[in-house]
Amino acid sequence: MISFSSMRFMLGPILAGLALLMLAPCIVALYYGSPDLEAFLLSEAVTAGAALFLIITGRRKIMHLRIRDMFLLTSTSWLMVCVFGALPFMLSHTVGSFTDAIFESVSAVTTTGATVLTGLDSMPRDMLLWRSMMQWLGGLGIIALGTAVLPFLRIGGMRLFNTESSDLSEKALPSTRRVLNRLLLVYVAISAVCAVCYNLAGMNPFDAINHAMTTVSTGGFSTHDSSFAYFDSGPIELVAVVFMLLAAVPFMLYLPLLLGRRSGLLSDSQVQSMLAIYFAVAAVLATWVILTDQVDMFSAFRKSTFNVISIGTTTGFVSTDYAAWGGFAAMLFFFLTFVGGCSGSTSGGIKVFRFKIAAVMFNETLQRLLHPNAVYSRSMQGRPVTDEIVASVMAFSLAFATIVGLAAMLLAAAGNDVVTSFSAAATTMANVGPGIGDVIGPTGNFAALTDESKWVLCATMLLGRLEIFTMLLLFTPAFWRA
Amino acid sequence: MISFSSMRFMLGPILAGLALLMLAPCIVALYYGSPDLEAFLLSEAVTAGAALFLIITGRRKIMHLRIRDMFLLTSTSWLMVCVFGALPFMLSHTVGSFTDAIFESVSAVTTTGATVLTGLDSMPRDMLLWRSMMQWLGGLGIIALGTAVLPFLRIGGMRLFNTESSDLSEKALPSTRRVLNRLLLVYVAISAVCAVCYNLAGMNPFDAINHAMTTVSTGGFSTHDSSFAYFDSGPIELVAVVFMLLAAVPFMLYLPLLLGRRSGLLSDSQVQSMLAIYFAVAAVLATWVILTDQVDMFSAFRKSTFNVISIGTTTGFVSTDYAAWGGFAAMLFFFLTFVGGCSGSTSGGIKVFRFKIAAVMFNETLQRLLHPNAVYSRSMQGRPVTDEIVASVMAFSLAFATIVGLAAMLLAAAGNDVVTSFSAAATTMANVGPGIGDVIGPTGNFAALTDESKWVLCATMLLGRLEIFTMLLLFTPAFWRA
Repeated sequence: MISFSSMRFMLGPILAGLALLMLAPCIVALYYGSPDLEAFLLSEAVTAGAALFLIITGRRKIMHLRIRDMFLLTSTSWLMVCVFGALPFMLSHTVGSFTDAIFESVSAVTTTGATVLTGLDSMPRDMLLWRSMMQWLGGLGIIALGTAVLPFLRIGGMRLFNTESSDLSEKALPSTRRVLNRLLLVYVAISAVCAVCYNLAGMNPFDAINHAMTTVSTGGFSTHDSSFAYFDSGPIELVAVVFMLLAAVPFMLYLPLLLGRRSGLLSDSQVQSMLAIYFAVAAVLATWVILTDQVDMFSAFRKSTFNVISIGTTTGFVSTDYAAWGGFAAMLFFFLTFVGGCSGSTSGGIKVFRFKIAAVMFNETLQRLLHPNAVYSRSMQGRPVTDEIVASVMAFSLAFATIVGLAAMLLAAAGNDVVTSFSAAATTMANVGPGIGDVIGPTGNFAALTDESKWVLCATMLLGRLEIFTMLLLFTPAFWRA
Repeated sequence: MISFSSMRFMLGPILAGLALLMLAPCIVALYYGSPDLEAFLLSEAVTAGAALFLIITGRRKIMHLRIRDMFLLTSTSWLMVCVFGALPFMLSHTVGSFTDAIFESVSAVTTTGATVLTGLDSMPRDMLLWRSMMQWLGGLGIIALGTAVLPFLRIGGMRLFNTESSDLSEKALPSTRRVLNRLLLVYVAISAVCAVCYNLAGMNPFDAINHAMTTVSTGGFSTHDSSFAYFDSGPIELVAVVFMLLAAVPFMLYLPLLLGRRSGLLSDSQVQSMLAIYFAVAAVLATWVILTDQVDMFSAFRKSTFNVISIGTTTGFVSTDYAAWGGFAAMLFFFLTFVGGCSGSTSGGIKVFRFKIAAVMFNETLQRLLHPNAVYSRSMQGRPVTDEIVASVMAFSLAFATIVGLAAMLLAAAGNDVVTSFSAAATTMANVGPGIGDVIGPTGNFAALTDESKWVLCATMLLGRLEIFTMLLLFTPAFWRA
């Protein structure tokens, strides 16, 4: 097992990065003379101090990490960022309790976007910015994790996407670092373009920057209680739709563009399937809304498309109270919660490639019923779908369903109604944000839940974000044996 | 493709069997001078006539059935029994509409046990008997199907249970017939013993016979609106629990007993897991009920055990209004709906062996995270879990979830609330019966649903009962090509 001093050496720079980012709200708080200034300065001091302590006391004992070290480091670093990121919430008077501070922070870092805060419209800008920045950081983290670490660790069938850039062996590390640096560049560039587009579409610069960060991270925090309904602007929603989709595709597909080559974005079968699912669901929903005479045809398509893509990509922006569209719409959004976007993107959920692998199995099974003795080969996008990948995807699906079920039961035991319990478990596990029902629906909020409920949801958000097994493995005795 | 005359030749004897069984309610109606007498005589005439027509006009053209013929015959025979079995409902004034008649019949034959009827306590005995007999027949049918046909057809991973007795080739047919005859004998014997036990425990002979038939078929129809709450008897519930469990194990395991050998019932890992799941869930539920101070300790365990085993085995008897136990209990029963019993039994649901296979994948996946290069072999009860079986189970699970989801959305679109829609889809797909929520909960009834909803549920009941793929395959173009 990795030594604590080595762990400190690895975690130090991550915390230093967080401290660096935290300077931004400090400066904003200083500029506006915000009541949160003290809280941010104190948080900055604690975070920077802790980072310094880790870096100084940490020692570079081992040169290459073993697999189980990576599991431990991944989970620990995520938890660490959640805890230190919660400091400004705790130290200011923005949130009511320790639990709420942790919940808001976990929701941000996991890019879930469920919030316990209301009164966003009148909240100090530093605090709003910090929420958005944490989502943005969480999005960056998951791209790195999903591209380089998880395929290498063989998590949830992501072995399928194993390439030279997800080879973390000593030899391949320089090229992996190069890929990660390029991904960072792409992420920053897309965020910047998104912010400019939002601004051009009519948002003020502050809103544009914040929403750009929570769009490309498919996080979904807004600077307004009513989310995108506040703007009620076609152009702004169009920008959001485009960038939510851009954030939900594998970021690796953007790298060829940096080298002036064609990206193959639209010929990627996972991307194609994702778009097909979203637009099919949006079309069905729009038809339903039109048939039931709820809004005019143009609004139906505009609102359906925006909200379906927001939930589908696991962003969680809301442009209208779609709960008012009745049970069918609620059910559609509930199931959509599970789908998610593509692997290697910032979006969560079960993810499209797992459904595609299940579909491959489904087709093979149907064919085998008629032709039992034929030979079947399994592939997706030209890569062989090995037996191991099938097993991983199956294990992931079982784990996902089981954890959603257990969490839903715990939430029900904590006094929540059946719909809220089930929906809260699903929407946090998939890192979406809004759920269905009266409490946590599109116009709702997680503030009303009990503390026990919020802790359960912190667990599902983290488990979902780290593709379950990264974290689950730490709870097995086998992990801790020699 | 099989010729229609050959199909008539195969379907004739099945319909003749139904006509033979229908004599029983005819005689009862005659004996009691029931108002339904005319309806039963007419139904008998039509069914017997149709059977005769099929047998006379059918020709034994082919000697051995091809695989796709079996798929067609299986689905057709099930549908045929549902339609002819509905005749007494249609022709009497027991049910309000054609839709209700078909719904009640499909619910009976698929051993679901969802009912649109109220006033059972004052209903003519012939009609009550007919409902119970149809469930009993459905249970017999599914044992035969699950033991001999589905493993041969490789449905949903049941290839795992392929033995010489599920070899339907010309050569092995005599031994398969012998096995099926023995299964019939076991089924009749268990039913008879169950009826005697119910009688000894305090039921009157008529109730004992009816409930025996709906217990061993894990059907769940009762002769009283309040189901087992009507009796409120510990001994009667004990008999029910024992025989529901006996009905939920693979009936093949009883065959050694006929030859005076030990059955290995309790050493079967699927049976062990099933019992472990049921009793664990019952214990959790009882603890919850005790902790929330709802009933005394003894009642808590008695009521939890009975209702959990009733839903778990997909029977659907109800001994108390467990909906009053709150959201946690509702959620528990909802998830329990999916579990089901063992393969080759009369129970429905996803079935325990599929969860066991998923658990094998889960464990392998966890281990592989730490030891990526080790060699893993997959087996269950000493049989190899082949790649094909894994694919089938995955395809089955995907299909199950998708159909429940689609049905829930259709039900929501038909105006049902979210909980009722989701629960109705699940409870019919798993052939359980009662759901959760105000409408179709333990004390509820399916009568209030719209006609469209009932047709959707007829489809899910049939799809669930025939393990989805048997029926689904008929809707693929490939099936009908040459």
